[in-house]
Amino acid sequence: MKLFLAATLSVMAFTGFAAEQPKNIIMVVGDGMGPAYTTAYRYFADDRASAEIDWTVFDRHLKGMASTYPARVSGYVTDSAAGATALSSATKSYNGAIAVDVEKAPTPTVLEWAKQRGMKTGVAVTSQVNHATPASYAAHNEYRRNYDEIADSYFDDRVGEAFVLDVILGGGWEYFIREDRNLVEEFKAAGYQYVDDMAALSTLTPGKPVLGLFADTGMPWALDTPTKQRLPALTKAAVKQLENDNGFFLLVEGSQVDWAGHANDVASAMAEMHDLAMTLEYLESYVKQNPDTLVVVTADHSTGGFTIAANKDYRWEPDWLKNLKMSVESLAKALVKSDTPVAFIEENLGFALNEQEKATVNALQEADEKTWFKTVSHILDVRSNTGWTTSGHTAVDVQVFAMGKGSEVFKGHMDNTDISRHIFKMLGKTE
Amino acid sequence: MKLFLAATLSVMAFTGFAAEQPKNIIMVVGDGMGPAYTTAYRYFADDRASAEIDWTVFDRHLKGMASTYPARVSGYVTDSAAGATALSSATKSYNGAIAVDVEKAPTPTVLEWAKQRGMKTGVAVTSQVNHATPASYAAHNEYRRNYDEIADSYFDDRVGEAFVLDVILGGGWEYFIREDRNLVEEFKAAGYQYVDDMAALSTLTPGKPVLGLFADTGMPWALDTPTKQRLPALTKAAVKQLENDNGFFLLVEGSQVDWAGHANDVASAMAEMHDLAMTLEYLESYVKQNPDTLVVVTADHSTGGFTIAANKDYRWEPDWLKNLKMSVESLAKALVKSDTPVAFIEENLGFALNEQEKATVNALQEADEKTWFKTVSHILDVRSNTGWTTSGHTAVDVQVFAMGKGSEVFKGHMDNTDISRHIFKMLGKTE
Repeated sequence: MKLFLAATLSVMAFTGFAAEQPKNIIMVVGDGMGPAYTTAYRYFADDRASAEIDWTVFDRHLKGMASTYPARVSGYVTDSAAGATALSSATKSYNGAIAVDVEKAPTPTVLEWAKQRGMKTGVAVTSQVNHATPASYAAHNEYRRNYDEIADSYFDDRVGEAFVLDVILGGGWEYFIREDRNLVEEFKAAGYQYVDDMAALSTLTPGKPVLGLFADTGMPWALDTPTKQRLPALTKAAVKQLENDNGFFLLVEGSQVDWAGHANDVASAMAEMHDLAMTLEYLESYVKQNPDTLVVVTADHSTGGFTIAANKDYRWEPDWLKNLKMSVESLAKALVKSDTPVAFIEENLGFALNEQEKATVNALQEADEKTWFKTVSHILDVRSNTGWTTSGHTAVDVQVFAMGKGSEVFKGHMDNTDISRHIFKMLGKTE
Repeated sequence: MKLFLAATLSVMAFTGFAAEQPKNIIMVVGDGMGPAYTTAYRYFADDRASAEIDWTVFDRHLKGMASTYPARVSGYVTDSAAGATALSSATKSYNGAIAVDVEKAPTPTVLEWAKQRGMKTGVAVTSQVNHATPASYAAHNEYRRNYDEIADSYFDDRVGEAFVLDVILGGGWEYFIREDRNLVEEFKAAGYQYVDDMAALSTLTPGKPVLGLFADTGMPWALDTPTKQRLPALTKAAVKQLENDNGFFLLVEGSQVDWAGHANDVASAMAEMHDLAMTLEYLESYVKQNPDTLVVVTADHSTGGFTIAANKDYRWEPDWLKNLKMSVESLAKALVKSDTPVAFIEENLGFALNEQEKATVNALQEADEKTWFKTVSHILDVRSNTGWTTSGHTAVDVQVFAMGKGSEVFKGHMDNTDISRHIFKMLGKTE
């Protein structure tokens, strides 16, 4: 789609930089992070021994809310592809669309527009780097699951003469090192640094483009990472690589808030929110040091029909979610082979099971991973009194947070397409 | 508690009117109206034949969001009493508290403070007038269900020499006309006009205090009202009675959004939202004519764990909720005596049942009202693909909407106590 895009971009009028134009724009998507997630995170982060409940980094920067509905053809409930297409290119499209409109024509994105202007561009995500959200900023495809095509396009497509992305950080070996094509070698031959280990991020040469892939598909859960965090490190590395006199556009995604929601896994939902919150705290300090940077944070939709309390009970108890030694998924995997499941669960959830929970666990000695997953996540739902209504998405409006230069334009109610419309305007694009 | 209050109010420093002090303040509470309700209402109100999805009156005035947690002793999930106490008197208290703190000491309210300043005061609600939300503005009691004591206090308590409320509109005969006391006669003897029929609202003498009670407890559901609306009429009448040179403070409550949420009744939830939205459209036009008026709209909490889509299905279909001829509660009552339940349901829901729905209904010929209610509301949940997780409340943050003079202070994130704190400040109260 290279030729088409070049044409489209060249006919868009460039009218100079807006007065409030930030030098750098960092767009952060908490995938699946509806209002229940940010609220729950406040109470998850709360120290019950203190008198006050502290504001979170989300609270400090709330500006407004956005509707998320896709194009009419897909009803009122969006998927991540149509959601990210709206956020990247001010276009309502069908569920599954990667920066193409309902006619499947490519829609120019804010990231491409920034690139066209001479800014550096990057993505730093905890999913595979060619997953729906980053793809909708840096590629165009009629269907989100065409992962190989999307990975190919990161190498094959250009904005003018330039590669679309200077920095690519996240998961995705499976799509970049294939039998039919080795994109890692192609990127290296084209001058990109390649790292496949988070520790190597500190060894990167600043200013030189980088491909960093750290997992087959998505990154391991935050709860399965030694520090319980990985997005702050990816984001810091991306910013360091992208800083330059012409500014940069960076897409950051806390991708796995959504995945925890799909799995109805409240422990990982809160751990992924913490990973994202720590990323925002870093960005908050970055904006303090670099007030010409704009950070916008939103979600594409909410996932799971997550509710803070359930079953008639006016109670939500996040303390039960604070001491996990591994993710529920890893727990379930290990339990398939465990001879002492009660002890193993108690050790890794960080609390003693009651008699009823023990009886449930002991009745499951020959269970498969899926059954163990449901059993352990159900224990945590009951303990915390968490509710879910779906393994899919819901249509509730999402919050919009912003800090730094130009952040005030994101206040009040807006549509998700207004977010990219504001950013296009800041980057000098007229309608 | 009269003496205590008089003392408390007199020691609060009155430092004159703030520069941005509105002449009139109208506080609107959508009880139970979390973000899923206002979002769902947009799609309920949407005309699918049009290309665009229009903004609602809520969207036009979104300013921020508020946390709703009660005092530590009640955890993170508030009830309407603690929620309204926070909104009325900037005080976190226990669930059940009516404008008293955790020590059960009365907490002065913004309504009392307005009265103290010489403004007129009123409540216009669709619950009984002595229900938790209005009570928390105009009374003080250690427990919300002491309905008789709260009704008594509307007559017995004073702010200085004056009655607390000049205008009282809503339901509540049961509490005002009792064997042990007839408060209606007492109010009439004290100079209040009394009406017990909505049609009589147009006959009221302006400027003279009024008690209007229109139901034993809460008002009938919007869906059971001939025009499907009653809060706009109550609100217009209240404003007309309250207008005066010194300004007024009016508490308006769309009380039954919450009741529909408790019942997991999506049809009434949307109808009650429409009743509230029409009230806000009236207030929007009032503020246009009277720009010295401030209107603040929020919720005390969200109810029911209501989600827009459920069960893995990326779909929400509000069209099924648009043609009811009566509430699901009234339908259920009538179905107990119906010989032709399928025909009766089809006639009153406004669509033909499918074979599966017919089979379910036909299997229930001898069912009680509760079973009919569950059956019919389940049909509507499945048709619309609505999810619920509880018959109680959840802790998700709620939106804050505001219009008119001083509305800008309500932007961004805040706690529910900050809302009353802002209003106290506008009314010249220092901390």
